[in-house]
Amino acid sequence: MDFKEKMDFYVHMVNDALEQMLGLDDSEQKKVREAMRYSLLAGGKRLRPVLSLAVCDALDGDIEQVLPFACATEMIHTYSLIHDDLPSMDNDDYRRGRLTNHKVFGEAMAILAGDGLLNYAYEVMLDYVCKNRDNIYAKIEAMRIIAKFSGIDGMIGGQVVDLECEGKHISPELLEYMHRHKTGALIKAPVLAAAAICNASPEQKASLEKYAGNLGLAFQIRDDILDVEGNVEEMGKSAGKDKAKNKSTFVTFYGLDKSKEMLHQITAEAIDSLAVFGEKGCFLRQLAEYLVTRNN
Amino acid sequence: MDFKEKMDFYVHMVNDALEQMLGLDDSEQKKVREAMRYSLLAGGKRLRPVLSLAVCDALDGDIEQVLPFACATEMIHTYSLIHDDLPSMDNDDYRRGRLTNHKVFGEAMAILAGDGLLNYAYEVMLDYVCKNRDNIYAKIEAMRIIAKFSGIDGMIGGQVVDLECEGKHISPELLEYMHRHKTGALIKAPVLAAAAICNASPEQKASLEKYAGNLGLAFQIRDDILDVEGNVEEMGKSAGKDKAKNKSTFVTFYGLDKSKEMLHQITAEAIDSLAVFGEKGCFLRQLAEYLVTRNN
Repeated sequence: MDFKEKMDFYVHMVNDALEQMLGLDDSEQKKVREAMRYSLLAGGKRLRPVLSLAVCDALDGDIEQVLPFACATEMIHTYSLIHDDLPSMDNDDYRRGRLTNHKVFGEAMAILAGDGLLNYAYEVMLDYVCKNRDNIYAKIEAMRIIAKFSGIDGMIGGQVVDLECEGKHISPELLEYMHRHKTGALIKAPVLAAAAICNASPEQKASLEKYAGNLGLAFQIRDDILDVEGNVEEMGKSAGKDKAKNKSTFVTFYGLDKSKEMLHQITAEAIDSLAVFGEKGCFLRQLAEYLVTRNN
Repeated sequence: MDFKEKMDFYVHMVNDALEQMLGLDDSEQKKVREAMRYSLLAGGKRLRPVLSLAVCDALDGDIEQVLPFACATEMIHTYSLIHDDLPSMDNDDYRRGRLTNHKVFGEAMAILAGDGLLNYAYEVMLDYVCKNRDNIYAKIEAMRIIAKFSGIDGMIGGQVVDLECEGKHISPELLEYMHRHKTGALIKAPVLAAAAICNASPEQKASLEKYAGNLGLAFQIRDDILDVEGNVEEMGKSAGKDKAKNKSTFVTFYGLDKSKEMLHQITAEAIDSLAVFGEKGCFLRQLAEYLVTRNN
């Protein structure tokens, strides 16, 4: 399989699993399932779960074991988007080319759908672990990693810094700190969770952590560039938001050219750190290259 | 120790543990810790964690093992209150005698503080389980129970039904369904999680589940009565809210007298189901009696 085929293969696997994990039912509370499904099954790049599956393959691991954890990170990512889009947060009307959750289901239901997805991530993982007791300590470690990187010292912490910095001039160091938490943490989580389940060596784990850290930062720089250069149709969300909100971004600090240079430099570092995997790191390398050129 | 002393003992143990688990730090994101601590350490009855500890004692279990799970249920309870109080939800200004979280920290931070507490509940449990590998399957089962009862088929599901029923006339059956989820689920969770960790027998688990189910319902009926009869100072939140919002409650369905009769009947059933514990069920029995007469 070439890169595109492999990517489609992973994305389909994730989409099928998510669809199966969060079916509709006839309970009194079915509305919240609808709201959760609306955002969870709206497409998206599936970058986080794809990373888990690709790391698993690079380590010759068992995809079946990694899949529930991969999907959990997508649920956590999606809940964070739903809450981030709320009127009191970023107040966004569009996401992934569709109306945001609260625009369709109302604010209260969107808050509950977000809460529901965050909690469901743990339900899915714990259900799986309860029923599949082999390799148990690695699985618990994977959950711990996902929890830690999703929390106040990880993703939520980054959102808090973002919130507090809004409209303020911040240092480039703080900007990087924010992104390493807000975006970076939930890119590291699926990579390191998969590494834990596949019992990666300390050397492999260190390489993967470096890869994921740089990938997350590159991802954010590309986002900042797209906010200036991108077009709405391709992105499925509004462009020019950062400027409208007077947000500090890599582009406002370094300008477009220097930001692009940084993007390529950091991506090259991400790719370099995969040397230890040889041929098996091929997809992860291509994924980093793909993210540099993405338009959404 | 008499009931009051035992209760104080448990509450202190919980408060100390929560204080220790969620300390302040000097990170960039310390504001969210402040917001989380504001609501988590605001006092409150600590009913959920106290239930866990009391069940542990009734089963001659190891309190040290149960404590992290007990505290996790209090974090989940607190996050649900923070989100429930938001303007787009119940829009409340006071809780536990103080301004609600969003009134102090703003709406966006309150949403993140709630998210942070929900996630932190899992961080605390998983950290503990990773470091203390004895009795591992029981601990995983305890986490699974807490996750399930907190999610869309438990507490969040009840909140969704509550949201959808607002301003509508609903059947008494749906009212009970709502409360068994919204309040009842997170009363069952700490009871059954503790039972799992203490390796309770199936008979003991069944008795405890019945106890917790009735306790949760009794708790809600008392809440509905207090909303009519209670006074603001004792409750630390506004009375008469249900009427103002035209909410269906046990009192609107059955009237005050019949509601009080039901309260006593259901409490008696809760107490009866503890027979299997003999003398060791003493505190849990007294707790049920105490909740009938509580004024806040």
